[in-house]
Amino acid sequence: MARFQGKIGVIGAGALGAFYGARLARAGADVCFLFRGDYEAVRERGLMVHSIDGDFHLRPQIARDAGELGPCDLLLIGLKAFHNAALPALLAPTVTPRTLVLTLQNGLGNEEAIARTLTRLEHPAAGEGEISPAAAARTIGGVAFLGSNRIAPGVIQHTAYGWLRLARFNGPADETLRSIAELFRGAGVEAEVFDSLRFIRWSKLVWNVPYNGLGVAAAADTRVIMDDPELRAITRGLMEEVVAIAAAEGAQIEPGFIDHMLEITDKLGPYRTSMQVDYESGRPLELEALLGEPLRCARRAGIAAPRMETLYALVRRRIALRDAAAPPPPASR
Amino acid sequence: MARFQGKIGVIGAGALGAFYGARLARAGADVCFLFRGDYEAVRERGLMVHSIDGDFHLRPQIARDAGELGPCDLLLIGLKAFHNAALPALLAPTVTPRTLVLTLQNGLGNEEAIARTLTRLEHPAAGEGEISPAAAARTIGGVAFLGSNRIAPGVIQHTAYGWLRLARFNGPADETLRSIAELFRGAGVEAEVFDSLRFIRWSKLVWNVPYNGLGVAAAADTRVIMDDPELRAITRGLMEEVVAIAAAEGAQIEPGFIDHMLEITDKLGPYRTSMQVDYESGRPLELEALLGEPLRCARRAGIAAPRMETLYALVRRRIALRDAAAPPPPASR
Repeated sequence: MARFQGKIGVIGAGALGAFYGARLARAGADVCFLFRGDYEAVRERGLMVHSIDGDFHLRPQIARDAGELGPCDLLLIGLKAFHNAALPALLAPTVTPRTLVLTLQNGLGNEEAIARTLTRLEHPAAGEGEISPAAAARTIGGVAFLGSNRIAPGVIQHTAYGWLRLARFNGPADETLRSIAELFRGAGVEAEVFDSLRFIRWSKLVWNVPYNGLGVAAAADTRVIMDDPELRAITRGLMEEVVAIAAAEGAQIEPGFIDHMLEITDKLGPYRTSMQVDYESGRPLELEALLGEPLRCARRAGIAAPRMETLYALVRRRIALRDAAAPPPPASR
Repeated sequence: MARFQGKIGVIGAGALGAFYGARLARAGADVCFLFRGDYEAVRERGLMVHSIDGDFHLRPQIARDAGELGPCDLLLIGLKAFHNAALPALLAPTVTPRTLVLTLQNGLGNEEAIARTLTRLEHPAAGEGEISPAAAARTIGGVAFLGSNRIAPGVIQHTAYGWLRLARFNGPADETLRSIAELFRGAGVEAEVFDSLRFIRWSKLVWNVPYNGLGVAAAADTRVIMDDPELRAITRGLMEEVVAIAAAEGAQIEPGFIDHMLEITDKLGPYRTSMQVDYESGRPLELEALLGEPLRCARRAGIAAPRMETLYALVRRRIALRDAAAPPPPASR
């Protein structure tokens, strides 16, 4: 099968983007990383990946801003969802009419944000929410089942899994999608292609909603959650709610998937989800992409999601309490 | 209507017991308060009640232990539910075969604990869970809609409401129950008699479950909860769950009651529930009486209570976190 060839830009090179970019670069792909805060550290000491699959070190191509990164053939987007407002500025210098954009971001709404941005770059007069067929065709969604953390500038710790599920934003799997999956496989990353983006997005939410939500509301890592019979029962209940909403959204998740997710998490050990890490580090949270937007889907579809509603309300409150105690720094532009 | 006459002992003279005992004493009733930690303060400076109905000060009869309190005609029980293990020692010296015991405690299970204790005092050979008809007949349940706090030793602050609902443990209202209601009315306390203890207990749980649970899980007083649209919606959802469990338990709560409770709470201002106060003070919580036992009723009856389950799991976790950070002192005996 053909492997994707061309220049790859990593935008949002955090725990997730830097990990996958580093795997591709190590396998010989032409990868350039856009770093901001970590630029100097990586320039001086390179990029270090401590990984359950074997540690490795790279001296990658890096850029300090999107202009320096320049036009790419494939972009990997690993931004936090709440930074999507920066997409127009990040994509304008890096996108050509043929560039593919693969988002590995968490939650709902990211593919839409990218496809809208691509649409407006091609058609500056396009309406606010408009998505052109050409933009939709170049937008790809990826879901990562990955345990990793950025433990220091330029240092990634990969603790579990790493498989990817890929789907086009609008339409079934095609040769282009398969060539991207092949690119990752060539780098030792399990990558499956799917015909339905909704299916892979909602499948991941089955995991993300309980563990990210409880990570903050219960101040608990995955092991604490799995070892507490009450929290474990709530986790299953939350997963059932997500599966029900997914079904209403047209994503039929197979019956055994919840047990599979619980089993995977039992083996994951004490993992702090990104929302828990962001909460405890005083940073913004991907609350709307991970919990708010799925909950609004439930409300639109008339599906009861009482545990999700409770969790959402409590996480919002915890953020408000945290920010009242120590106001966050002003958002970077 | 006849007003109850006789010696009244207050056991558990905290924010609630001391308030009602003080109202009765001020109105001329023969009231003696059992104080432990506050004994010296009250002996020296008396009992001060700062109240929305007018401040007042008393030099009450006080006792340092149950033996000194001695036999009473009516006992008001204001103990925290988790201190019920002390009931045998507290009731043995204070109960005669004619003593009535009125519990003003929160949550489920207190009347049972008292009636079992009375049974074993009369019939030391009685089985662990046995309740004699005579013991049941002398046990009375009271539900207080009261905003009050003990702000210093011997100092009570009464901030809102104060009405009582009274019912016999086992059977419809009778002359004795009415005479106790009349006793409170004579002290300016609104007191209504009911034919169903379950009805008044579950009615109070409609309020207690959300505000006590969210008080800890969301670290929020009643005003914060009412002013946050998401927490307010969760509160209503929790109330609906309690009403559904109550119905399965044979307590039909009238349709407008939830709106009434929300309205009352809107007027209550920023009130910290007892569970929030206990949590923040590092003390044990009445979690099982207020949330655990109602949840077990739901499970036995096959009623879904997903918000309550979530709240219960999260409050348990918050207590575990608190106690891990600062272990509580050993329980007093």
